[in-house]
Amino acid sequence: MGKKEGKYDLIIIGGGPAGLIAGLYAVRKGLQTLILAKDFLGQVGRTALVENWPGIKKITGTELIFKFKEQLEEWKPRISGDEMVILLEKDGDDFLVITNKKNIFKSKAVIIATGRNPRPLKIPGEKEYIGKGVSYCSTCDGPLFTDKRIAVIGGGNAAFETAIEMAERCPQVYLLSRSQKIIADQVFQKRVADLNNIEVLLTVEPRKIKGGNFVDSLIYFDKKSGKEKELKIEGVFIEIGSVPAANFAKELVEYNNQGEIIINHHNGATKTTGLFAAGDVTDIPYKQIIIAAGEGAKAALTAYNYLTRNEY
Amino acid sequence: MGKKEGKYDLIIIGGGPAGLIAGLYAVRKGLQTLILAKDFLGQVGRTALVENWPGIKKITGTELIFKFKEQLEEWKPRISGDEMVILLEKDGDDFLVITNKKNIFKSKAVIIATGRNPRPLKIPGEKEYIGKGVSYCSTCDGPLFTDKRIAVIGGGNAAFETAIEMAERCPQVYLLSRSQKIIADQVFQKRVADLNNIEVLLTVEPRKIKGGNFVDSLIYFDKKSGKEKELKIEGVFIEIGSVPAANFAKELVEYNNQGEIIINHHNGATKTTGLFAAGDVTDIPYKQIIIAAGEGAKAALTAYNYLTRNEY
Repeated sequence: MGKKEGKYDLIIIGGGPAGLIAGLYAVRKGLQTLILAKDFLGQVGRTALVENWPGIKKITGTELIFKFKEQLEEWKPRISGDEMVILLEKDGDDFLVITNKKNIFKSKAVIIATGRNPRPLKIPGEKEYIGKGVSYCSTCDGPLFTDKRIAVIGGGNAAFETAIEMAERCPQVYLLSRSQKIIADQVFQKRVADLNNIEVLLTVEPRKIKGGNFVDSLIYFDKKSGKEKELKIEGVFIEIGSVPAANFAKELVEYNNQGEIIINHHNGATKTTGLFAAGDVTDIPYKQIIIAAGEGAKAALTAYNYLTRNEY
Repeated sequence: MGKKEGKYDLIIIGGGPAGLIAGLYAVRKGLQTLILAKDFLGQVGRTALVENWPGIKKITGTELIFKFKEQLEEWKPRISGDEMVILLEKDGDDFLVITNKKNIFKSKAVIIATGRNPRPLKIPGEKEYIGKGVSYCSTCDGPLFTDKRIAVIGGGNAAFETAIEMAERCPQVYLLSRSQKIIADQVFQKRVADLNNIEVLLTVEPRKIKGGNFVDSLIYFDKKSGKEKELKIEGVFIEIGSVPAANFAKELVEYNNQGEIIINHHNGATKTTGLFAAGDVTDIPYKQIIIAAGEGAKAALTAYNYLTRNEY
């Protein structure tokens, strides 16, 4: 891909609910809008079933995102998928958005709506075996592990739900939690206790993921015995939370201690004029599709005020 | 109706998007929830066609609200329609909610999501002729005025849209605006100019609505000529904006200069512990269904934190 220059009123970075709904509001207001997205999945795409999207009783996460995208596309905005932003900077009053495809786009305003990525364990073997036995999403990858022995890392709801889901298709599931105290909801803890092919290992620390072409074992440190142990498994699901995906804007935004972009909750503004943020990448206290969608609309309307009246 | 006592975790006041989505989130979290609503219409019910609800391409306002309500009802919360709150007060740590049916309900937390009402003109005859020629909603009442001569009061988008809509079914539409400068969008002004059965009267002040059993004329003051004039019409649509519907909570909340409840935009909190507000009744800068819905979810999750962890 060459250098594609383009000048827009507004560039929206992110293809999840916040980004797509910001896009819908922006194009309906007549703004020349470019939407850049790594993919159109995000966290919603990793959700098997959404039952709390108002107006639709039950829908898969991927179908819901597809509906958002389809509704936006009716307005024919420019959308570039499979395009990840690596740097956002200011050039006078404009913004320059530089992507992994070495494209440079220019705009008067930007909305960051990049959501969150799964938190990595940061142990040897993790990166190397992504797609070869290491996964962060049982909804996406679960079926690939049918009839295999797997480990799930984490002690929260996501880890417990993954273990329960995978126990249906796997002969043996190990659930490894660093602490003695489980933070997952009681209802999940009870379900795990009832399933005899899930073994819960508490106070353990994953140390290394090993294998040949594919994962074949997990080394962990057992804090109680003080010894390193090995589990023969063919898959590792890492479910230890998520991190906001907004490293590319370092100079232009302020982060809270969780790495979330601090916004004005009134209108989605960041510390840089013309730069807005919405959804789970921000310090909004609740990470929910409907809230991210509303925040996306809010940021788009503030961007519109900025572009048309130079105030917000 | 007698005095119905009841004690709930949470009472949600309002049957629009903010209230119904707050309800959905509250019941899914297991809170004992009561939803009190004057009706299940609100401003959305006065909207003919909604094209920007994410996930649904086109839907009437009433159908959308019905879908929200249906999804909530699956969780079997207690919902009381046709019940208007007239007073909200504190009783120790609890809230007392008193309604027009003289019911008194008690709860530990309350969410106000009462939205907005049409702004009245406050001229003689207006109140008396509501439902007898005076209307605030062409989407609701338009068909009743087919083949009648009508006046529309207002100079913004809502007034222009109403005039355009009514010009399809009425032989003559008068559009009366107080000022010389029209604030409606160009696109609406152009459409009005193109319709030869709409007459625009600028710098006029409506003074009195007259009639027998039904409206038969509108008296207005023409500022240019300095004279009072009379229009023979059978209907008056008043489209001069809206006012927040939150008078019943006077002691417990702070209002901005537009009468909107001031909230913490981070979490929906008001100045009173345990009392939250969401949607168009608050000082949120944009009045949009998706934003109100997100704010409703936010307020419900904050109420949940308050009820379960006593913090927010």
